[in-house]
Amino acid sequence: MNKKVILLKRPKGIPQEDDFAIIEEPIKANFNDGEVLVKVKWISIDAAQRVWIAGSRSYIDPVSIGSVVKGLGVGQVIISKTPLLKRGNYVAGFLHCQEFCKINASELWKLPSYENPQLYLGVLGITGLSAFFAIEELAKPNRRDTIVISTAAGATGSIACQLAKLRGAKVIGIAGSEDKCDYLRNELKIDAAINYKTARSMNSALRELCPDGIDIYLDNVGGEILDAVLLNIKKHGKIIACGAIASYNSKKPKPIYNYPLIIALSLTVEGFIVWDYKNRFQLATRQLSRLVQEKQLIYKEHILEGIKKVPEALRLLMTGENQGKLIVKLQHSDPHL
Amino acid sequence: MNKKVILLKRPKGIPQEDDFAIIEEPIKANFNDGEVLVKVKWISIDAAQRVWIAGSRSYIDPVSIGSVVKGLGVGQVIISKTPLLKRGNYVAGFLHCQEFCKINASELWKLPSYENPQLYLGVLGITGLSAFFAIEELAKPNRRDTIVISTAAGATGSIACQLAKLRGAKVIGIAGSEDKCDYLRNELKIDAAINYKTARSMNSALRELCPDGIDIYLDNVGGEILDAVLLNIKKHGKIIACGAIASYNSKKPKPIYNYPLIIALSLTVEGFIVWDYKNRFQLATRQLSRLVQEKQLIYKEHILEGIKKVPEALRLLMTGENQGKLIVKLQHSDPHL
Repeated sequence: MNKKVILLKRPKGIPQEDDFAIIEEPIKANFNDGEVLVKVKWISIDAAQRVWIAGSRSYIDPVSIGSVVKGLGVGQVIISKTPLLKRGNYVAGFLHCQEFCKINASELWKLPSYENPQLYLGVLGITGLSAFFAIEELAKPNRRDTIVISTAAGATGSIACQLAKLRGAKVIGIAGSEDKCDYLRNELKIDAAINYKTARSMNSALRELCPDGIDIYLDNVGGEILDAVLLNIKKHGKIIACGAIASYNSKKPKPIYNYPLIIALSLTVEGFIVWDYKNRFQLATRQLSRLVQEKQLIYKEHILEGIKKVPEALRLLMTGENQGKLIVKLQHSDPHL
Repeated sequence: MNKKVILLKRPKGIPQEDDFAIIEEPIKANFNDGEVLVKVKWISIDAAQRVWIAGSRSYIDPVSIGSVVKGLGVGQVIISKTPLLKRGNYVAGFLHCQEFCKINASELWKLPSYENPQLYLGVLGITGLSAFFAIEELAKPNRRDTIVISTAAGATGSIACQLAKLRGAKVIGIAGSEDKCDYLRNELKIDAAINYKTARSMNSALRELCPDGIDIYLDNVGGEILDAVLLNIKKHGKIIACGAIASYNSKKPKPIYNYPLIIALSLTVEGFIVWDYKNRFQLATRQLSRLVQEKQLIYKEHILEGIKKVPEALRLLMTGENQGKLIVKLQHSDPHL
């Protein structure tokens, strides 16, 4: 039997437990050539999932009511109808929020190392890769640049902060609690952190910390914080639009008012999703993995246990109560599988 | 004596006559080396002036209350304290809304031809140049591209439409009246025109005309039209942010709601002002001038006479009642000057 998290109704605001249901259904026994059955071991909880369950236009089809909540995961192959994967291999991919996933092997990444495979959902997965391409491909800050990073203590932001520091930039992080700001200052050792929940005004906080203006903004939130950054960005500044979490829980996206400054200041806004760089994932993962081994990159994981925790994990991510990469670890009822 | 248009108060909404005053003051007789006195003959009326009189952050300092309304103009040198310019030479530059301008010669462009010098405010001036750099440098549409252009019948939009057609693109223009749409279809011969004032929904109008999606949007307005374009733009589409006239007359800029699509569709938004390309103006003007001579580019002028008409001209531009490049032609009281 397969347990899966299905979407009962589109959440209004922050996702709640009763927007979802856990159902059980038999696993279909017929396998086509190329297919495998994966026992899902870790489910990744990502901000993008909030977009997929909202039903909005995005880069993948939205989750329809009654179907499984989409998501990335890491698991172990238990049945294989392809020579490419063997029983026991660890794989990552869109396994979705369920205990077992029947999937074509071509849609999976075989993991190169079996040590901490759940890292391939975080620092070595799409959040780490998002940070990597945002910083190394798009932002490319140098030691003369001031870069501001929002959701700086999050799974993507925290890696981006460290990569930007490694390039010598002045890094200002924005986060939503004193704990997170302390983490940014004391553990990630960035130049300054702003708690946007207690700052009297984001505009003046930014002006104080970046008196000469902001060169680059790595935007994970959109909304008011973006508007405040626009008031403090330099002529010819760059905005890397990586996420808009401020809008993910509202029916209507949060408005941006200072768009005219994009013209007046000749700014460039580059939107991207990590999948644009799919063919370079392997190379990038190898670089990130090396940095992790050398302890040049540190990371935090926030792990919840059991498939029933998926709705709670989504809620935590959206309220910012998590500390580090949110992952749901599955405990399978049948240990022999 | 010099007559000049000064700003009495910051306009609320569309500029009105009583936001301005025409004052008269003597011309200071002392000239430093390098300075010239220019008799202003044509004053350019541009959307950017609305931003300057609003007092907002922009690429030049705002107009302060009680001082002359900034603006471009073409005039003739009548006193010269520099070997670079002779009495009688035609020049263009920030002469502002006044009859005479004392200015350093280094801030002026000497016009290469004296035939229709007011063209250097329109098709050969900043509106033509904005269109040129937007299309030839940033948008670069080819024959496979669908480009949407807003304020398509305006001084910048109409040149942009024609330049995009010359490159073979499918061009969809957006304008605010049936007359303007007829002009776009019948005289500029673009592929389709949308009257945004009568279209039931910009979203469905765009979807109908661009069933495969929009490749490039040359944005002169911002606001709701930009939001509708975002719903119809292709993955990896490009937005050239050239103006935001929808916001220029409101206290708070018009919000943009569909910002999250910039991420989901990996869009690039490139803001620019024509002055970014200052060192290439001469070359570009030469190209535009050749196209005008070859009748590959047509243009319209809307000329009002007398310095008193400046406030009315600003109002006409903002309500879209003008037909073509708005220029105020000055009639000097002393014909001997």
